[in-house]
Amino acid sequence: MKKGVVLLSGGIDSATTLFLAKEKGYNPRALIFNYGQKNKKEVGCAKKIAKKTRTPYTVIKLPFSWKGSALLDSHIKIPSGRSLKEIGENIPSTYVPARNLVFLSVAASLAESVKAEGIFIGAHAEDYSGYPDCTKEFFESFRKTLIRGTKEGRRIKIYTPLLKKDKTAIVKIGLRLGVPFEDTWSCYEGGKRPCGSCDSCIFRKNAFKRIGIPDPYFVRGR
Amino acid sequence: MKKGVVLLSGGIDSATTLFLAKEKGYNPRALIFNYGQKNKKEVGCAKKIAKKTRTPYTVIKLPFSWKGSALLDSHIKIPSGRSLKEIGENIPSTYVPARNLVFLSVAASLAESVKAEGIFIGAHAEDYSGYPDCTKEFFESFRKTLIRGTKEGRRIKIYTPLLKKDKTAIVKIGLRLGVPFEDTWSCYEGGKRPCGSCDSCIFRKNAFKRIGIPDPYFVRGR
Repeated sequence: MKKGVVLLSGGIDSATTLFLAKEKGYNPRALIFNYGQKNKKEVGCAKKIAKKTRTPYTVIKLPFSWKGSALLDSHIKIPSGRSLKEIGENIPSTYVPARNLVFLSVAASLAESVKAEGIFIGAHAEDYSGYPDCTKEFFESFRKTLIRGTKEGRRIKIYTPLLKKDKTAIVKIGLRLGVPFEDTWSCYEGGKRPCGSCDSCIFRKNAFKRIGIPDPYFVRGR
Repeated sequence: MKKGVVLLSGGIDSATTLFLAKEKGYNPRALIFNYGQKNKKEVGCAKKIAKKTRTPYTVIKLPFSWKGSALLDSHIKIPSGRSLKEIGENIPSTYVPARNLVFLSVAASLAESVKAEGIFIGAHAEDYSGYPDCTKEFFESFRKTLIRGTKEGRRIKIYTPLLKKDKTAIVKIGLRLGVPFEDTWSCYEGGKRPCGSCDSCIFRKNAFKRIGIPDPYFVRGR
């Protein structure tokens, strides 16, 4: 079996991507980033999903002591109560400088080190059209840089299986594959329960509503 | 003054690059990586150089727990006693998977966060022709990826002022600019004193010999 590295954040997209990597015949290893995000729950959820699926994982603590993103900086408010249309219009304040560039670079280093042949990232351009590091153009350019700047980059493919999917389609795929959505976390805020009004909560609620089933996170007696 | 981010390793090249960034009119901020290298001295040297030159600095601890490089892995011997010709022939075992890709990505994140307009890296292709992440093609490709995948990447230039220089030329530039070479560390091994026979020590010795002055590191009563 080919080895793969999967970026696992603890959310719906990356958990589904982990299952898609397996379906594609990869033996995945999860890479989890603790990068100073306000929301501390997602790292725990990512670990839980890795354990439940018997996926070996590595947690990387990235001490992004710099600020400038609503996901990191307690002085910047996370946007709340926006419509789906409003969310996609601009680069949101939740943009973390060069985040996917850093994540993919570390994943590339790990992939090269363990001789993995694929890196899987659950980015999707449709929902988060505002994030420059979730676009097809970025991932293609990254792959070129990887080939140029590493010893074995040519052997490493970048998989973005969800890139053209919206959240509803992703949840449907996840349901088919048996992704434990009850263990995933989407909310940007660091509260005990999902806030229900940040962009990420809005996308999640909307997806389960459209499919017509309750969010498994809330079903498990929380 | 424009802000700049300088990758500072504690060696001759990055220390000289720091001075070149200042000469170019940048107000530099140093980024120092503690990435699990066997040689623990260089991080201390980098900090010392930053302090001596009153450069604000950030130390990033990258827990590269994976192996596969002679610089990280105690089971892999660092090559020793090679000729200058032998050193340049292949990708050496001291290659660290995707190292400069990771370093530059983190630098890009910092640069975007503090609104810096330049990233300076002291790589040079001539001495280390074996490292894919020290080539012009890699840096050019990285810049393209940076523009594609970040909010303000277009504003951030990648400076590689030493790319076409050999070690002798770099030492000459450093001497002109007053770089405190006595505080720099080049040896790949983690000993108390430079081993004198790893590739990096060989380049350094050769440079000072060619210029015809003693290495300031040894002059200061060590």
